[in-house]
Amino acid sequence: MDGSSVLTGPVEIVGTGLIGTSIALACRRAGLEVLLTDTAPDHLRTATGLGAGRARTPDDVPQLVVVAVPPDALGPAIAAALDSAGPDTVVTDVGSVKAPPLDAVAAHPAVSTEYSGPLTASAALFDGRPWAVTPGPGASPRATRVVDALVRLCGAVPVQLNPVEHDRAVARTSHVPHLMASLVAGTLAAAPPEHLALSGTGVRDVTRVAGGDPRLYSQIIGGNAREVAALLTEVRARLDLVLEAVAAGDRVGLESLLGYGQAGTRAIPGKHGAAPEPMEAVRVSVPDHPGELARLFADAGASGVNIEDVRIDHDPGRPVGLVELDVVADHAEQLRAALESRGWETHR
Amino acid sequence: MDGSSVLTGPVEIVGTGLIGTSIALACRRAGLEVLLTDTAPDHLRTATGLGAGRARTPDDVPQLVVVAVPPDALGPAIAAALDSAGPDTVVTDVGSVKAPPLDAVAAHPAVSTEYSGPLTASAALFDGRPWAVTPGPGASPRATRVVDALVRLCGAVPVQLNPVEHDRAVARTSHVPHLMASLVAGTLAAAPPEHLALSGTGVRDVTRVAGGDPRLYSQIIGGNAREVAALLTEVRARLDLVLEAVAAGDRVGLESLLGYGQAGTRAIPGKHGAAPEPMEAVRVSVPDHPGELARLFADAGASGVNIEDVRIDHDPGRPVGLVELDVVADHAEQLRAALESRGWETHR
Repeated sequence: MDGSSVLTGPVEIVGTGLIGTSIALACRRAGLEVLLTDTAPDHLRTATGLGAGRARTPDDVPQLVVVAVPPDALGPAIAAALDSAGPDTVVTDVGSVKAPPLDAVAAHPAVSTEYSGPLTASAALFDGRPWAVTPGPGASPRATRVVDALVRLCGAVPVQLNPVEHDRAVARTSHVPHLMASLVAGTLAAAPPEHLALSGTGVRDVTRVAGGDPRLYSQIIGGNAREVAALLTEVRARLDLVLEAVAAGDRVGLESLLGYGQAGTRAIPGKHGAAPEPMEAVRVSVPDHPGELARLFADAGASGVNIEDVRIDHDPGRPVGLVELDVVADHAEQLRAALESRGWETHR
Repeated sequence: MDGSSVLTGPVEIVGTGLIGTSIALACRRAGLEVLLTDTAPDHLRTATGLGAGRARTPDDVPQLVVVAVPPDALGPAIAAALDSAGPDTVVTDVGSVKAPPLDAVAAHPAVSTEYSGPLTASAALFDGRPWAVTPGPGASPRATRVVDALVRLCGAVPVQLNPVEHDRAVARTSHVPHLMASLVAGTLAAAPPEHLALSGTGVRDVTRVAGGDPRLYSQIIGGNAREVAALLTEVRARLDLVLEAVAAGDRVGLESLLGYGQAGTRAIPGKHGAAPEPMEAVRVSVPDHPGELARLFADAGASGVNIEDVRIDHDPGRPVGLVELDVVADHAEQLRAALESRGWETHR
């Protein structure tokens, strides 16, 4: 949390939704004065009630203004913030995908927006998250340092990107995946129940993000139209190749296209930014009632093996859950033996 | 597990990979005699060593032959099984997506094939899974009853589908989602590291299945070429609409397309085949070292609230994990209060 010395407050938060209120709470946690602004009085009241700060008055002079409003309201809100800013006030936003106005620094935490509103806010929302910091062409080094300090104060990991690269990066890691998930989900919307009965974990994983609010995501994705359209055009060209390979019975071509995708899954950085370690899943049958998961994790904890990830199988009609515990491959046998010695049925 | 009386054995398993050996183990668990056949002597030895059965001899007369070989080897293997079958022998397969030969009943458990080989097999692999049973036009009612008994003996849930509907259903719930995931993953394969640094849980979920073996999936998907091509053509047409809406800045059109996808995510059957209950995520900060998850689940278990699903946040650089516990919405407050009283930091 270095660099906090350059961020002394007050910090004004414009927009007290999930992101804005979470930033406010993180600033309060760090002892900074926080001023809140929102066009919705009930949101403002709720955020104040949560201890996120106090309503801004006209006499307040913030050091940093964080504009955290929905994408379509962002332009006017940034303009208003710049208008009312003092000469030393730094203005940043946390929602745009466009090159920011000259004096502003855009900073975009990579958090999912499955939830919304101040009630779902948390000072810990950004812990360890990548958070893109994209200084505009006119941003001063001091403004960038102040925004960088805010990111660190929130516990996030700043990733410096210029505005163009930022927009490309989020098209690739967020917007196009969302649209593709939505297209897959769309094929289920009018599907016969006997088709849907075969849904396993695969299609559930692929379509999960498509459950997000269509209105919000049409703003987010629509705000990055150029980069999304460019990448989606590439994806469509490759989809045409897949379609040709499938229709022509070209197994070699299909395998090569699938291999390219497999390589992509391996390019995603591993946990904690480290190179991915080989992992192995230890699968355990667990009765589906309270206390059983507790017993499982107590027994797993006693084995001394760190569990990196966990999945509960959700297939319909399954009376006994299959829980998958991902551990570093070298420790899988140790965990399996420990669990079996305590009576658990494990599967490789 | 009713219906087991019509399945008396011996059961021959042709192909001792993950699926075949798992079926063999389930049959052994039920006390049936199991005969094993495999062109790979080491697979056969391993499966025998696991207690999955004994090698078939020419004198054996199985009641049921289960052909469980890779898709491209399936046709000849089924033909061979029918050739050597006794007059009362029932032949089924667990890998094809094509209409089966006249006398055979195809039966396809919906299990992921992320793992392979006999060593990963388990009698519990099919517990509660949907398992499509697709009697061919020439299949006798007796043959269908025998296969149905096998499915139940494995603990799976039979879903009766005719061959055409079966192929459409798996194109929709498995093959097309896999291809779309692979296309998204492909955009990451050559991406700059600073783009990949922004990868969150969304893109990880969408691309996960694309990590599967390209050779196996090109066989599986290629074997269902007609239905996959038909559905993928529909998806491409809709992708064109999305691309048009994005490029034209048509937010209303984009929102409508995203809304259709959101409706699709809600069409997937809920846990245990029931209508989806409203769920809520209780988010908890958890230090990333051994024993902490155990402590969390012990405390959660003591609250008496059943945990329906759990996710561990995997973003790079995150020193403290954020664990999301999904519970029935009505019980979320109870769980939150219980965890907070034991010192956990929870977030909505």
